[in-house]
Amino acid sequence: MTMELDLVPAGLGHALEELPLVDHHVHGVSSHDLSRMAFEELITESDRPVPDWMTQFDSQLGFAILRHCAPVLGLEPFCTPEEYLARRARLGAGEVNRLLLGASGIGHFLVETGYRGEELLGPSGMAEAGGVPADEVVRLESVAEQVAASGCSAASFAERFGEALWERTRTARGLKTIAAYRCGLDFDPAPPSAEEVVAAAGRWLEGGGGRLTDPVLVRHLIWAGLERGLPLQFHIGLGDPEVDLRRASPLLLRGLIELAEPTGVPLLLLHCYPYQREAGFLAQAYPHVFFDVGLGVSYTGARSAAVVAESLEVAPFAKILFSSDAFGAAELHHLGALLWRRAMARVLGGFVAEEEWSLTQAVRVATMVGVENARRVYGLG
Amino acid sequence: MTMELDLVPAGLGHALEELPLVDHHVHGVSSHDLSRMAFEELITESDRPVPDWMTQFDSQLGFAILRHCAPVLGLEPFCTPEEYLARRARLGAGEVNRLLLGASGIGHFLVETGYRGEELLGPSGMAEAGGVPADEVVRLESVAEQVAASGCSAASFAERFGEALWERTRTARGLKTIAAYRCGLDFDPAPPSAEEVVAAAGRWLEGGGGRLTDPVLVRHLIWAGLERGLPLQFHIGLGDPEVDLRRASPLLLRGLIELAEPTGVPLLLLHCYPYQREAGFLAQAYPHVFFDVGLGVSYTGARSAAVVAESLEVAPFAKILFSSDAFGAAELHHLGALLWRRAMARVLGGFVAEEEWSLTQAVRVATMVGVENARRVYGLG
Amino acid sequence: MTMELDLVPAGLGHALEELPLVDHHVHGVSSHDLSRMAFEELITESDRPVPDWMTQFDSQLGFAILRHCAPVLGLEPFCTPEEYLARRARLGAGEVNRLLLGASGIGHFLVETGYRGEELLGPSGMAEAGGVPADEVVRLESVAEQVAASGCSAASFAERFGEALWERTRTARGLKTIAAYRCGLDFDPAPPSAEEVVAAAGRWLEGGGGRLTDPVLVRHLIWAGLERGLPLQFHIGLGDPEVDLRRASPLLLRGLIELAEPTGVPLLLLHCYPYQREAGFLAQAYPHVFFDVGLGVSYTGARSAAVVAESLEVAPFAKILFSSDAFGAAELHHLGALLWRRAMARVLGGFVAEEEWSLTQAVRVATMVGVENARRVYGLG
Repeated sequence: MTMELDLVPAGLGHALEELPLVDHHVHGVSSHDLSRMAFEELITESDRPVPDWMTQFDSQLGFAILRHCAPVLGLEPFCTPEEYLARRARLGAGEVNRLLLGASGIGHFLVETGYRGEELLGPSGMAEAGGVPADEVVRLESVAEQVAASGCSAASFAERFGEALWERTRTARGLKTIAAYRCGLDFDPAPPSAEEVVAAAGRWLEGGGGRLTDPVLVRHLIWAGLERGLPLQFHIGLGDPEVDLRRASPLLLRGLIELAEPTGVPLLLLHCYPYQREAGFLAQAYPHVFFDVGLGVSYTGARSAAVVAESLEVAPFAKILFSSDAFGAAELHHLGALLWRRAMARVLGGFVAEEEWSLTQAVRVATMVGVENARRVYGLG
Repeated sequence: MTMELDLVPAGLGHALEELPLVDHHVHGVSSHDLSRMAFEELITESDRPVPDWMTQFDSQLGFAILRHCAPVLGLEPFCTPEEYLARRARLGAGEVNRLLLGASGIGHFLVETGYRGEELLGPSGMAEAGGVPADEVVRLESVAEQVAASGCSAASFAERFGEALWERTRTARGLKTIAAYRCGLDFDPAPPSAEEVVAAAGRWLEGGGGRLTDPVLVRHLIWAGLERGLPLQFHIGLGDPEVDLRRASPLLLRGLIELAEPTGVPLLLLHCYPYQREAGFLAQAYPHVFFDVGLGVSYTGARSAAVVAESLEVAPFAKILFSSDAFGAAELHHLGALLWRRAMARVLGGFVAEEEWSLTQAVRVATMVGVENARRVYGLG
Repeated sequence: MTMELDLVPAGLGHALEELPLVDHHVHGVSSHDLSRMAFEELITESDRPVPDWMTQFDSQLGFAILRHCAPVLGLEPFCTPEEYLARRARLGAGEVNRLLLGASGIGHFLVETGYRGEELLGPSGMAEAGGVPADEVVRLESVAEQVAASGCSAASFAERFGEALWERTRTARGLKTIAAYRCGLDFDPAPPSAEEVVAAAGRWLEGGGGRLTDPVLVRHLIWAGLERGLPLQFHIGLGDPEVDLRRASPLLLRGLIELAEPTGVPLLLLHCYPYQREAGFLAQAYPHVFFDVGLGVSYTGARSAAVVAESLEVAPFAKILFSSDAFGAAELHHLGALLWRRAMARVLGGFVAEEEWSLTQAVRVATMVGVENARRVYGLG
């Protein structure tokens, strides 16, 4: 299901290159210069030290950096990691960010600020570095942890969280939950009672607050988020070792999806790898379910067309979005967009070459997935 | 694993076009003219209203209709949905059915009559509309629900069901269970005791009968079906939102497969998407297990070659069948056959082009999967 | 993601053909002549008699034998099974083994001796038949069953097993567990207490020993193996019907992987089909996790490039190995190597043709996966 880009119909390739993508789930770039170790830690989901007998450059993502980011920094494709990092250091983080974000052609960032946000550019920094609009997506668990850190009783937690959520999301475009990391997606989907929330908050706060993992509280956050009414993103599938991938299947959300249906809140399943087909099924079955293959594109590099192709099976095309989930290194922002454009060109171009789709249909679907669906779901300009 | 059809060896393409497919699991077509809303509801597995910001024509299945069914109705490929529906309305349901069923080249229909059968053509109507033989596959749950509706005590349910099953299947070729919808496939595989059946029937009938979901009764139906001795079809995987896809994996049937092995009854796993590889494993492991990728072909359209290819991995070729699972709209009957032929041409043609298979082998496997395996399993002429 | 081999860059095809593969998980060949029935039983994972209405030659593996092994025995490709078996019988097992092992180009065998080892060539026999070095991988469950068979009390089992393990592995390169077959991978990952082991050994030995399935004992074996310190192989995924594929997902090992991490012992996930993407995730997340797609290559034949491609997605390239898992019939040894070389040529050649990878990168990754990673993990010359 792949083809050489030379063979992609010119109109489709051009249309894809020009799309002002809405990256509906992305993190900021780091404004610091990065050591080799720091850089390698940003190009893997592993949180373990890189063993001395290997380098993270020997991966699909690493090869994609040397292939596609090197030229943006003025190097030949397929340079060595050493050459790449030396050029990166010489240019400095600010210039590297400007070059790579600019080359990405992303037209709008929805920046999730809840993870190590203090180290990274926020929405306004991203807007400045990228020269395009940027809005915020607020992580529910971070708001709750800030409420706990600011001092809060068990009895007042729910109310304080509600206030804080409202306050933090005045201008936000969406919410995000990392329940998949914190307690797995096999939680009881029903909203917990007020008493259960007080009891769970008591246990959590007595332990000093901190990392929120209690499934009762996670459920409360999700239901408070649904009440807030902004589109709600779920981390699904592939992630760092904290995630138990078995408990990160989108199919586990079925109960919640059905209970949440009357709220009308769009639910957005992020990444989904390797569960993109399962996500597609949910997106066909439920009108308020959407998904992307975000992180599954950049991490699979030369194989990303296969992942994108699997996302284009049973879901209606109005239910599929683009995101990069890039974090820290601007290479990830650039590659998230570039690999997606190339994958879509190959996959949709293949459909056209095989005379299954018309060129017009291919261009329209690329535009829906890359731009229009996100604009509609998030109410962007 | 796809290729342009121009590149498929001519002998293979021709052989596939000519195959008088046995569609071993299909529903009837509707003899009524269909409104746009009714038509769109037939081209999705979702049972929710189509939101006003989308159309089901924007999907792989929708695009396949505009590409492949439009010419059968005398339109250009890639016409608009409006043009398509207007032409469909002008021709009328009878003519549309005749054209599309005729174009499908299906040689024998095994019609499952248990779902909304009153709205659709039955086996004799399908035989007439398609001009080919049609036999019946009887849905176990429907027979049980009819027994309940006709008035029946808990104590007599098992006997009454047994009589009704025998009566309803005098000329039937197979049985079908939708346990995956009704209680999930993670049920206790052993046959329930007579006492358990009476107790469960009592609970069900006290509640007025109706939709049968009790796993004890579902198990009883399955074991009664095994005793009846006709090939037994299982809905697996993809379906409408009633299915919990997590509980519709064929791997959950392992216990039942092993317990049923001594009966010698062929077990046929239908659709299986996205579990086609798991189904292939079961078909290799157990002599009495067979499978198809039915619904997974029409719903994936331009991607159906990928799904068919995954079905041709570890299962012996004598264990794979063709079905369309088409329902209501004759477009689904036509596309089930057409997309399968094209997918097989591309996949098997690819094996030949890569010099992994001979042309003779490819034609023989296509004939086994499309015609011969079903004839053997169901004892067709 | 496949291509005709004619289109693979010559340098890559040549490099792959010349690689002296380390087959890090393989069984011996049979030195006996094989009847048709015996041969067909070796080319399926099913342990059931082959039904009279089919032949195991009608499968991807069967077709691959007729395509690729026939020429090694001096026949035309795509001969009939009868011609193939007649030639095989005429040549005799010794010559067939010599020809096929020689043609495989495997440079080093790590022979797992724990399954029907008495019928097959051991490491020294394989070294002689193949003309290359061969070392042993010891199956934990077999050692324990031998301890029980030799007479052993419950109280002394743990000590006797520890001694036997040390004795049996003096020159071994690795250990293997078939927990997936014996109790499923959803066992409690913690080491059992000494008391639990005594109690479980008591139950087992009272029953006469024999096939070890008690999860407490399986856990004890695994933890004793981790203490022994040799690389530890796990059967994962596809296998004979004894395996419950649902309980053979590598994701179930997460708890054990995390508990075992401080030991520094490499954990090697074998085969993994259809869970190769899940295995890749674990190999990215955890530095001590490695995997291969062994059995998933030979059994998928013309589709093996698809399986290999999926293994090259999210895992760093230093974490992927080659194995054939061949057993009994030397055809499986030859095909394990040949199909892997062809699959890598097509997949990596495709990356090069699409200008995503350089030729140098492709050759380097092929060498890492085929040879170098295993040499490093097992400390081979």
